[in-house]
Amino acid sequence: MNFGKYGVADVRLERLAGQDAEIWAGNAVDERHGGPVTIGFGRYGPGARLEETIAVHDVMIVLDGEVTVTGDGRPVTAGPGEIVYMPEGVAVVIEAGECGAMTAYVTYPHWREARG
Amino acid sequence: MNFGKYGVADVRLERLAGQDAEIWAGNAVDERHGGPVTIGFGRYGPGARLEETIAVHDVMIVLDGEVTVTGDGRPVTAGPGEIVYMPEGVAVVIEAGECGAMTAYVTYPHWREARG
Repeated sequence: MNFGKYGVADVRLERLAGQDAEIWAGNAVDERHGGPVTIGFGRYGPGARLEETIAVHDVMIVLDGEVTVTGDGRPVTAGPGEIVYMPEGVAVVIEAGECGAMTAYVTYPHWREARG
Repeated sequence: MNFGKYGVADVRLERLAGQDAEIWAGNAVDERHGGPVTIGFGRYGPGARLEETIAVHDVMIVLDGEVTVTGDGRPVTAGPGEIVYMPEGVAVVIEAGECGAMTAYVTYPHWREARG
């Protein structure tokens, strides 16, 4: 049971392994807690860019700034209060706007286990 | 495959069935789309109150306003950019602040199927 409230101040943001981009992520709830979903926060530097095939169902909620995600060749741009859904297996390019972005994410199953 | 961007304008907010409270919810992605998670948006009127035992793992992201959630007797208050995690089986009371609230939610599995 991990009922509770989580903010970006509650997580330790760590540079995403295996990426040059200025992207940090920090899990608030994940495989350590016994539930099925990972919940966390992400911070993207200005123009930060990540290319990846998504290993889990990944829901990104933009809290601040702007992110453009191109999924299977189709770009969408999301700002505060908007959500980008990246289903498992989709090839994406994620690019932060010129002021960077702050996001929250929810993944099923746990992204860190799937990413290795 | 339902890669894409979703905002509150993309959903049809409907009054929550079986509740007197001024609470609306609208799914953007759910059981109709073949994936494992439901994604949607919620609107709470000023002071709206909901008492429920959570049937799914429910992640609430506060986009605007304020929500106090009491889970198993422990209250937490979340504002914009903060997340309340309600694991399956927890008994909660959700109360919106005096200006109401706008939220996004991600549930695993699908809440509408679990709630009936």
